Amino acid sequence: MESFALEKLAVELNGTPLGAKDSFFTNLQDSRTCDENSLCFVRDAKFLATLSPNAGAVITTEALANEITATKNFIIVDNPYLAYARATQLFFEKYNENNAKIEPKIGTNVTIGKNSVINGNCVIGDNVVIHDNVSIYSCTNIGSNSIIHSGTVIGSDGFGYAPKKEGWEKIAHLGGVVIGSDVEIGANCAIDRGALGDTVIKDGVKFDNHIHIAHNVEIGENTAIAGQSGVAGSVKIGKNCQIAGKVGIVGWLEITDNVTVMAGTLVTKSLKQPGVYSGVMPVQNHKDALKFAAKLKR
Amino acid sequence: MESFALEKLAVELNGTPLGAKDSFFTNLQDSRTCDENSLCFVRDAKFLATLSPNAGAVITTEALANEITATKNFIIVDNPYLAYARATQLFFEKYNENNAKIEPKIGTNVTIGKNSVINGNCVIGDNVVIHDNVSIYSCTNIGSNSIIHSGTVIGSDGFGYAPKKEGWEKIAHLGGVVIGSDVEIGANCAIDRGALGDTVIKDGVKFDNHIHIAHNVEIGENTAIAGQSGVAGSVKIGKNCQIAGKVGIVGWLEITDNVTVMAGTLVTKSLKQPGVYSGVMPVQNHKDALKFAAKLKR
Amino acid sequence: MESFALEKLAVELNGTPLGAKDSFFTNLQDSRTCDENSLCFVRDAKFLATLSPNAGAVITTEALANEITATKNFIIVDNPYLAYARATQLFFEKYNENNAKIEPKIGTNVTIGKNSVINGNCVIGDNVVIHDNVSIYSCTNIGSNSIIHSGTVIGSDGFGYAPKKEGWEKIAHLGGVVIGSDVEIGANCAIDRGALGDTVIKDGVKFDNHIHIAHNVEIGENTAIAGQSGVAGSVKIGKNCQIAGKVGIVGWLEITDNVTVMAGTLVTKSLKQPGVYSGVMPVQNHKDALKFAAKLKR
Repeated sequence: MESFALEKLAVELNGTPLGAKDSFFTNLQDSRTCDENSLCFVRDAKFLATLSPNAGAVITTEALANEITATKNFIIVDNPYLAYARATQLFFEKYNENNAKIEPKIGTNVTIGKNSVINGNCVIGDNVVIHDNVSIYSCTNIGSNSIIHSGTVIGSDGFGYAPKKEGWEKIAHLGGVVIGSDVEIGANCAIDRGALGDTVIKDGVKFDNHIHIAHNVEIGENTAIAGQSGVAGSVKIGKNCQIAGKVGIVGWLEITDNVTVMAGTLVTKSLKQPGVYSGVMPVQNHKDALKFAAKLKR
Repeated sequence: MESFALEKLAVELNGTPLGAKDSFFTNLQDSRTCDENSLCFVRDAKFLATLSPNAGAVITTEALANEITATKNFIIVDNPYLAYARATQLFFEKYNENNAKIEPKIGTNVTIGKNSVINGNCVIGDNVVIHDNVSIYSCTNIGSNSIIHSGTVIGSDGFGYAPKKEGWEKIAHLGGVVIGSDVEIGANCAIDRGALGDTVIKDGVKFDNHIHIAHNVEIGENTAIAGQSGVAGSVKIGKNCQIAGKVGIVGWLEITDNVTVMAGTLVTKSLKQPGVYSGVMPVQNHKDALKFAAKLKR
Repeated sequence: MESFALEKLAVELNGTPLGAKDSFFTNLQDSRTCDENSLCFVRDAKFLATLSPNAGAVITTEALANEITATKNFIIVDNPYLAYARATQLFFEKYNENNAKIEPKIGTNVTIGKNSVINGNCVIGDNVVIHDNVSIYSCTNIGSNSIIHSGTVIGSDGFGYAPKKEGWEKIAHLGGVVIGSDVEIGANCAIDRGALGDTVIKDGVKFDNHIHIAHNVEIGENTAIAGQSGVAGSVKIGKNCQIAGKVGIVGWLEITDNVTVMAGTLVTKSLKQPGVYSGVMPVQNHKDALKFAAKLKR
């Protein structure tokens, strides 16, 4: 990472620096874990309670800054989320350049298929099998004995944008992907890198084909996910879960250990108790389905 | 495109030519926009009202031809849709050959990843980033500053076939894909080329991973679509829409500007008013879900 | 395949050999079709009725072995499914090595795109078009005139694991994929190889983009499947079916000929009568949808 002086960053973000204007900050971090050498952002009072007491500096509004005691260093802006998005782009340039310089480390007895690409700063463990036409972006770790099937993409940017007057400002992604040992990833999956911090797939996890894992998801040991299921950003799934095919899990939810979700279910709330969950319309003869729907409506 | 004389085409399509049999036609077009140098087809009376007054010639049935005044040039067949499918194949051969001859035009400061393929007659704007293992078929335009993630396919044939006695006759695809500026396309997406005319993705559109865009879809400026959503053929989506993950939109529908569709919804009708739309079964403990379903049925 | 003596296999599987301990077996097979040179496994009494009378040897429990008359050769284990998973791994090594040695056979007038990979022991029929960045694993047959679009993966391992004390034991896949003639497979599809026996896609089948076909599925002639639909393991779909987009079909079901399944439906039971089937929640204005859901719950 490049270091930025608070004052210089404030200029780039069209904000006002407060505090130690000539201090240098080397990183952008999540507000909950931000250390003294790093910046974070706070866009809403609800994030104040979990703000790290060691945050080096905070991008926020004037009103919110008045309530923050963790630091005296601020970049005051009207729209902290938009300023954060722009900050990620500033830090990304150096992040990307540094990653590109670091040769991937490949373990012993690794099989790499034809036309598979492993970018800089990746670590591939022993006995890993990567099939053909796999794309691995920089900053991906894969543990030993894991298998990656063809067409899978690991480390693509997450789907993150700050809304602006016209359209969207891209949030550059400064995290990576950490995949454990004995993991198998099916064909044509896509696992996004983290925005700040990593996307984490623990040991023994098994993915079928066409699995979509968004940024900053965490999946616990030995959890298995069947075909065409998708997990939205920052979801945490526990250990030994079984997620059937075509399941969707919406963002920021938590699913505890030993949960089974049946096929086609959309999970719209955290599942805090182990057990079996479902929620689909029954398949019917279409005429019956129409009658059923009409009756329901009455 | 190759030119075909009306008479020759009629022979190839097992049809009867009427009118200027030795006139040459250079293109197949949509019946609504067909010009004097082109052919179109009409397979049902409901398409008569929108038939272009400048149509050069029409592939249709004898009965329908009697109602058409826009032109006197016809190829009379029993099954216009099947004849159209065969006509696309005739025109495709030259279309494909011509595209292959034209080197892609690549703008300045373009990044092209490893093993990405850009076929003939493509135009890639300035500052575009194409990651690894991307497949871009001929006749794809990508505007400046756009980003295409790994594994994505742009310009594959749409899913179009005319039913015939045994099975399906392929409709060759003579359109392309036009992607605007400041667009980001996630990993392992698939965007099909148009059948006649183009598939269009406007400026500022953002796609997450595994998005499926069928032939002749149009998506308005700054619309964002989350993971694993799919848009069927000829759908029009307006500007500034937010389509969440795992949404499906069935063919030929129109969605106006500023519509939000929540995760997992299947859109089965046009959405003509801005607003938020949804429609999913609630996730429940599976035993409760079974009781719920049983009660519903009663 | 390598041959294994019953006694040696029993040692590898931590089991007890019974019967002709020095007999050699060359293959693992499905219990319904197992021949005298092959082994199969029986893990539950419900599979006894369909056990092949010619089975060479059976991996099973002591209790189940007492009920089997088809053979006197057994490997007695506590957990037949787990022992079977380990047996697949033993046979896989040789299977894989042999496949790698056999050059693919490519027909006449075949087009193979850039960066597409065709592994050993494949057979590609005449006039086949394989677009760019396609991944074809060993033991895939593709019939003449078929078209495979970019990003598609054929022959990846199916999603099969035996549960063990901690996590999952991989079931190595010893089958292949057999695709008929005049088949078209869209972009970014994934078609898994069979576990024992093949995954079979019959003549004239058409797949849109992002189709997921699990291990040992069979799809009948001229069936068409639209975008983002998925078919779980061992499902049999008949001829001339039309499966719309975003449909899911759960494992082991049978769908007869001439069935239409509408978009977004999750098929949770076999469909034994031709006809049209559906089952989705209606899309509504979100406020109405919430009221509707609340009323349903009461």
